[in-house]
Amino acid sequence: MDYQEILAAARGDKPASLLFKNAKLVNVFTGEIYPADVAVRRTRIVGIGPGYDGEEVIDLKGRYLAPGFIDAHVHIESSMCTPREFARAILPHGVTSVVTDPHEIANVLGLEGISFMLENAKYGVLNVYVMASSCVPATHMSTAGARLEAYEIEYLKGNRWVLGLAEMMNYPGVIAGQQDVVDKLETFEDMVLDGHAPGLTGKPLNAYMAAGIRSDHECMTADEAREKLRLGMTIFIREGTNAHNLRNLLSAATPENSHRICFCTDDRHPADLMEQGSIDYIVRMAIAQGLDPITAIRMATLNAADYFGLRDRGGIAPNRRADLIVFSDLSAPVPEMVYRSGRLVAQDGVMLPGVEPPRPIELRNAMNVDWGAVNFDIPANGSRVRVIGNVPDQLVTEHLVRDARVQDGRVVGDTEHDILTMAVVERHRSTGNVGKGLINGIGLKRGAIAGTVAHDHHNLVVIGVDNVSMMAAARAVGKMGGGLAAANGENVIATLPLPVAGLMSMEPIEEVRASLDALLDAAGQLGSPLHDPFMAMSFMALEVIPKLKLTDVGLIDVERFEIVDLFVD
Amino acid sequence: MDYQEILAAARGDKPASLLFKNAKLVNVFTGEIYPADVAVRRTRIVGIGPGYDGEEVIDLKGRYLAPGFIDAHVHIESSMCTPREFARAILPHGVTSVVTDPHEIANVLGLEGISFMLENAKYGVLNVYVMASSCVPATHMSTAGARLEAYEIEYLKGNRWVLGLAEMMNYPGVIAGQQDVVDKLETFEDMVLDGHAPGLTGKPLNAYMAAGIRSDHECMTADEAREKLRLGMTIFIREGTNAHNLRNLLSAATPENSHRICFCTDDRHPADLMEQGSIDYIVRMAIAQGLDPITAIRMATLNAADYFGLRDRGGIAPNRRADLIVFSDLSAPVPEMVYRSGRLVAQDGVMLPGVEPPRPIELRNAMNVDWGAVNFDIPANGSRVRVIGNVPDQLVTEHLVRDARVQDGRVVGDTEHDILTMAVVERHRSTGNVGKGLINGIGLKRGAIAGTVAHDHHNLVVIGVDNVSMMAAARAVGKMGGGLAAANGENVIATLPLPVAGLMSMEPIEEVRASLDALLDAAGQLGSPLHDPFMAMSFMALEVIPKLKLTDVGLIDVERFEIVDLFVD
Repeated sequence: MDYQEILAAARGDKPASLLFKNAKLVNVFTGEIYPADVAVRRTRIVGIGPGYDGEEVIDLKGRYLAPGFIDAHVHIESSMCTPREFARAILPHGVTSVVTDPHEIANVLGLEGISFMLENAKYGVLNVYVMASSCVPATHMSTAGARLEAYEIEYLKGNRWVLGLAEMMNYPGVIAGQQDVVDKLETFEDMVLDGHAPGLTGKPLNAYMAAGIRSDHECMTADEAREKLRLGMTIFIREGTNAHNLRNLLSAATPENSHRICFCTDDRHPADLMEQGSIDYIVRMAIAQGLDPITAIRMATLNAADYFGLRDRGGIAPNRRADLIVFSDLSAPVPEMVYRSGRLVAQDGVMLPGVEPPRPIELRNAMNVDWGAVNFDIPANGSRVRVIGNVPDQLVTEHLVRDARVQDGRVVGDTEHDILTMAVVERHRSTGNVGKGLINGIGLKRGAIAGTVAHDHHNLVVIGVDNVSMMAAARAVGKMGGGLAAANGENVIATLPLPVAGLMSMEPIEEVRASLDALLDAAGQLGSPLHDPFMAMSFMALEVIPKLKLTDVGLIDVERFEIVDLFVD
Repeated sequence: MDYQEILAAARGDKPASLLFKNAKLVNVFTGEIYPADVAVRRTRIVGIGPGYDGEEVIDLKGRYLAPGFIDAHVHIESSMCTPREFARAILPHGVTSVVTDPHEIANVLGLEGISFMLENAKYGVLNVYVMASSCVPATHMSTAGARLEAYEIEYLKGNRWVLGLAEMMNYPGVIAGQQDVVDKLETFEDMVLDGHAPGLTGKPLNAYMAAGIRSDHECMTADEAREKLRLGMTIFIREGTNAHNLRNLLSAATPENSHRICFCTDDRHPADLMEQGSIDYIVRMAIAQGLDPITAIRMATLNAADYFGLRDRGGIAPNRRADLIVFSDLSAPVPEMVYRSGRLVAQDGVMLPGVEPPRPIELRNAMNVDWGAVNFDIPANGSRVRVIGNVPDQLVTEHLVRDARVQDGRVVGDTEHDILTMAVVERHRSTGNVGKGLINGIGLKRGAIAGTVAHDHHNLVVIGVDNVSMMAAARAVGKMGGGLAAANGENVIATLPLPVAGLMSMEPIEEVRASLDALLDAAGQLGSPLHDPFMAMSFMALEVIPKLKLTDVGLIDVERFEIVDLFVD
């Protein structure tokens, strides 16, 4: 910090670099709005009040000036963009800081992936704080690209952008005192420990918190949020692409506890980021639902800064970073100008040119498939088969049992009953693992879809009507170094390359979104009635969410937490 | 942290060590009070809710259970007791944690003094957090026992009980960007920077904050507090022995900003600690003035924990330390039981026996006076003299000019006009410095008083009617290794030994208080009408508070910030 320069500007002995005149200042410290001038010297706010001069003067003519928004918990990978490109997408929405858990890339590339996220964000315009991923891999019943132990993630503590341990999803492990979990908690006990405790209540919740975990973003009901707030948890209200919690949770907020509530997006897809927005969208939604606008803005700013101990963000005060947004309508704030560290970076919803120069991406190929071992044949070893039952807009599946359709001694798809072949091809270590199963509820009438976004191990998942289409889609993904593809027979009809760990694109978010739209069109042409069969597919391999899932090592009965055979007789 | 033991108790698999049943839980997170059971395993709270068993069960029968109080800013030395004995005085008042600035002892013994405070508090029952003293010495116009530069106090950063930089009293130095001051701010910029900015407003206040300072405990008016709160400062409302700010400041608190207000005592003398209390007294006073009791308790607990980043204190929640108080009357909470880390340490206003074993004190003698150089003669080099005008109950003095009373070529006291001789004898480095002057408003008719508590340099101050009494009082203090004394002629009539740096006693606070009472009686018998002439004396040598003061190097015109002659003609 250049004290002399800052002090000279604060005293008024030298002009501010930037002076906002005639602002309506949104004061999140006191819950007030009043007219004020705000002086900035380079990256920091230095003075609030009359009598300052500025090298550059912005007359806000009564528009509102508020602190930049903070996303308390986001997986950047869900945007399918690198941190740099993600920044370009959300900064125009007034989000100047995010706290990210690089959990997806960590499952693919381990510490190398986390370092990539830190490195890619470095010197970028967006403040990207990282929490050390706590649950890599999710279970032993799939093959991830990496396994992170306490002693490995401890290494991240030295990085000043790392704030603590990311959402501890293994809540049964915490509660039971599982040693490798406790090791991680202990390693980070002097930092922030984020939680993930859907539906947890009573003694198990007490135990989870007794281990030092202080936040949760998985509340589904206001009662759940109330119990957690009473126990001293900070609650992140989430509005993601799939998970929508604001409507249910907002009634739990009171003037007394609202200081301990933040906003987060968790997972947002490109189209939602571009059309709805990010934290700004949650703020508008909360106000529309009746929350006091200043309280909503505080949840989106100061509360997160306080929770994470970010003393230099979250409010408009001398010494804090000049992360600021300008808007006109308090009842529905739409950032018109966004300043990051005193620099105008976005205007009227668009990032300014030249603000975010690209950075070269140096990451190893994350597609390591033993193609010689890959085939999608399922020998018919019985007549009754387990079938994963996809439930629209849900991550949970049904555990169905159906008659197998058998041809030439092999179980094949049965479009009449909407039963398709599904395969999970291990892609991290060339093990040759291919898990095979059947799935209902995807609705393809021909062709196949494939992709390397498959929570949390992110192996290559393929769902299709016939083996030729499945192989064409899978091979297309392989050729791209990861991504999404749709094929009909040998024709690949749409693709989205995601060469960064098989999760993220190197292209602008607009192109990612266009490719995704084309993929969804293609899947529709192949007969799927789903809004987004790729997203549905990305959760069909997630073996920690009930009931029946498929990983590269086989079918998982999640309720019994064990591998089961495809055939029931 | 013993995870397995804590988790087992939180799950309910093992009994809690301590279970509070039928509590009315004061929830500072949500601002609610409701019936609850609270389970503690050893030092930590592990569970809140029904169904817990305990090895020891305390049926509170509907009494209130709240977190232990936190004093956000206190100079322990003002109690004239060592940290151990101070703990014994305040724990019965429900204060389980204090944040102390060892500024007084640092002025006498430097880092050795600060280490003594840390060491003496170690393994003690009271949580004693230390802020690194920022302004030692206060100015160049007195001789202190130590000088602390940035590189010296930086050494304290390694101690886990050190939270940051203590009140930066040199606000002109901050605002002007004085290099040694900036060095200290920069050294601690990643920690908490406490402020001290009486009356600061507008641009100078912005500059002070732009340097990173985040709190203030010197507000005198509600408007001043409001301006500082708006700028993002945390405000500590102080009720000390001399400084009473609650009545003036409380109206600045609103439901929106009250999360950023804490309580502190700053300086409290033994009698006030024993009779009124500490933070508990402020809580009762705030409630009596109309503040919501839960808000008052939150100011005394969670707000301070949040401000200082103490994630394991300040509220009743799983994982937090079991620092708890029990009381019956919400409109005037008087702690009936006080628990520190799950252990009952005080009951009905008294520390339990055996809780706080004494620790040996090993500190060098802090009385280094060149007695050969000490005399109190003032040669008459003029006829008009400057006289320090003591103003009852104020730290500021008047700058008077009077006719000198001269005898045998020397200026002497003039009890008729209440003009006494005052001397400040350098006691740290045997320099032989003796500053001499005259003072009005102390009221002694005969004899003299002397003491080594003299902010901030804590040299030996003597005020008296005649040289014989002054020498007797001064010598008595010297013999005790520091302390307070009153003499009449050659007779020493009352003493309080303060051998620990000349500031603190080694005796129990009750004896300290009894000795102080005897000293005040003695001063009364010598003719002083003041409530406490020793306290008045202790500020007459403080050269940073206007208008006229005396240090060992001479009379200081504080407004001109320079040394002036006793004689004006």
